[in-house]
Amino acid sequence: MQTSVAIIGAGPAGLLLGHILAQAGVPFVILERSSREHVLGRIRAGVLEQGSVDIVASLGLDANLRERGLEHGGIHLQYEGERRHVDFRELVGRTVTVYGQQALVTDMLAEHERLGSDIVFDASDVSPRGTDGADPVVGYTRDGIRHELHSDFVVGADGYHGICRPSLPSRSLTTYERSYPFAWLGILADVAPSTDDLIYALHPDGFAMHSMRSRRVSRLYLQVEPDASIDDWSDERIWDGLQTRLGVDGWTLEQGPITEKSITPMRSFVTSTLSSGRLFLVGDAGHIVPPTGAKGLNSAIADVALLGRALLEQRAGDDAPLASYSDQALARQWQVQHFSQWMTEMLHVHHEVPDAAARAFRYRSQVGQLEYVTGSQHAMASLAEQYAGLPF
Amino acid sequence: MQTSVAIIGAGPAGLLLGHILAQAGVPFVILERSSREHVLGRIRAGVLEQGSVDIVASLGLDANLRERGLEHGGIHLQYEGERRHVDFRELVGRTVTVYGQQALVTDMLAEHERLGSDIVFDASDVSPRGTDGADPVVGYTRDGIRHELHSDFVVGADGYHGICRPSLPSRSLTTYERSYPFAWLGILADVAPSTDDLIYALHPDGFAMHSMRSRRVSRLYLQVEPDASIDDWSDERIWDGLQTRLGVDGWTLEQGPITEKSITPMRSFVTSTLSSGRLFLVGDAGHIVPPTGAKGLNSAIADVALLGRALLEQRAGDDAPLASYSDQALARQWQVQHFSQWMTEMLHVHHEVPDAAARAFRYRSQVGQLEYVTGSQHAMASLAEQYAGLPF
Repeated sequence: MQTSVAIIGAGPAGLLLGHILAQAGVPFVILERSSREHVLGRIRAGVLEQGSVDIVASLGLDANLRERGLEHGGIHLQYEGERRHVDFRELVGRTVTVYGQQALVTDMLAEHERLGSDIVFDASDVSPRGTDGADPVVGYTRDGIRHELHSDFVVGADGYHGICRPSLPSRSLTTYERSYPFAWLGILADVAPSTDDLIYALHPDGFAMHSMRSRRVSRLYLQVEPDASIDDWSDERIWDGLQTRLGVDGWTLEQGPITEKSITPMRSFVTSTLSSGRLFLVGDAGHIVPPTGAKGLNSAIADVALLGRALLEQRAGDDAPLASYSDQALARQWQVQHFSQWMTEMLHVHHEVPDAAARAFRYRSQVGQLEYVTGSQHAMASLAEQYAGLPF
Repeated sequence: MQTSVAIIGAGPAGLLLGHILAQAGVPFVILERSSREHVLGRIRAGVLEQGSVDIVASLGLDANLRERGLEHGGIHLQYEGERRHVDFRELVGRTVTVYGQQALVTDMLAEHERLGSDIVFDASDVSPRGTDGADPVVGYTRDGIRHELHSDFVVGADGYHGICRPSLPSRSLTTYERSYPFAWLGILADVAPSTDDLIYALHPDGFAMHSMRSRRVSRLYLQVEPDASIDDWSDERIWDGLQTRLGVDGWTLEQGPITEKSITPMRSFVTSTLSSGRLFLVGDAGHIVPPTGAKGLNSAIADVALLGRALLEQRAGDDAPLASYSDQALARQWQVQHFSQWMTEMLHVHHEVPDAAARAFRYRSQVGQLEYVTGSQHAMASLAEQYAGLPF
């Protein structure tokens, strides 16, 4: 089998790159280790930067997003019983849109199926080779039969645990990472959101967040210990924690049946290069952010936008954009990494610091930071431009 | 002996408060543990916020400052061989002025002596008592004779190691603090500054800074280990370190004789209250910042401006400003604490992090931060407004 671009992974990054190539008439094949049902069932992020919405729209994939997505002109930052609004529209003329990654994947997959795109689910033992030469090959097994896919380029959109990053020559790889002493307990609940815009709250007990998935489904998060077990968090304990941490005078958090519950560790990870020869990494395959800034999915989309453009320019005879893809994507990514870390540190409580005076200093300085950030037009605009998204 | 305000400490905070009171005709006495010569000889900070300059000017103390101070409309931030200017004037219409604390103390003391202010040097065993009642007394010994100074109010301007903070009732005190895994080696050198505006540099070896004291005297700093000994830093090693860390293409760091050399540990410290009864703390007696944001002296001046106003309003019959002094000063201070910590973390290298990937992550995310901060108008304006000084 022969194609131009072999895409490994049918998550949002791989599907989106497929649509960029499809629109330009470039042949591609997407190989996915999991089943179609599994891909459609994965619950992930839900906040799209304006630039992410724009690229989805430019590919004509935004019909459902426009209808069901919830556009937000800002966020609430909360601390010490104060809830303050940061108005992105007013500050930087930009917005974000809440639309579940799952819904975006569903839309993109439906359109691929309408177009008849080549997507191979249940492809096991996917293994790229020869990517440093002129004729990369990706081997994979489907229904017990081994296949070989020849291509001009291989794109690793296969996530942090995928095969593509380890396929880069190890001489070119340095790893940068940071783990955090806390995790997020996230729930989906069948109840209308109790807030217009997302609420990010610092509370002495820890961070809490009120997000949403739709007009009828709320998404809520609690900071928990990194080794917390879901078994220790009954629905009652979760709602109690949310009521305490999100509570402000004159406001009520409505409760409803919890339909999904999970704990996610938080870390930062970046690899030193996103390309070698004819192999390119996008999204989680190359970098992970803690979720506080809502940058995971958006970073993957930013990578794909840049790489998609570079692949098309390469076909038009200009190799330079492809050659600089890794440097350009990583330069943006490091700014995003800093922002994600900054939001995380501003809003989470370092319960693990042993010394009481040091622990208290940390908390009070976060309150000072929130006072400043929510009181200064310049600081709010800086937060707004980063949250709504740096240019692709 | 009887006065209205007993000021403990003849550093910049105590001397400035004296001038505010003198201008309004309020009686005061300043008690200082050290000798006049020692007070005049202390080398400290050198960057004045615009608000600090304004208050000095409003008291008519700015003749020398206007003549010899160096007004700066911005700073340089440097990383990875790039030196980028942050233009405070353009961004927020404000400036800072480099004028050594030593010179400011000299000016204020000369004016006190011209006015015939009561300043008692070499006052040992200074000890305030009864500050929670109606008749505070400060005992002290001079030339072997014990004195008692009765006053309406006692102001502790006696620094971190002074007697006043420990004189607050311990029930009202919580301590917030943070120490940093590095220190500053600072030098004064008899050589014209090699730069127009201050340079703050992040380098893989550690932070470096090029500041100045006058048109003929440079002030330079190097990040060193917290337990570094001055004996291990020969003049040659210092200049080598400065050349390496401050070096950029096409620029030369001029060297000259080093006339002063010292190592300062870096920490953050805040006490939970700056007042109890008739005792009020200002400046280092209540809080310490790491020097990176140049906020130590300016915070002391901000406290004094607020407290001076409150003392005058109290005499005019309004007790409220004095009652809220501590809360107001601390609210500003926590924003300043955050800024100082933010500048420190952005520019220093955490050599002590044991894990290579975590250490490398930290450094790269600082580079990402500097890319963002020096590339975004909003972020630069936020830095500028904080560096040039939040409102008093």
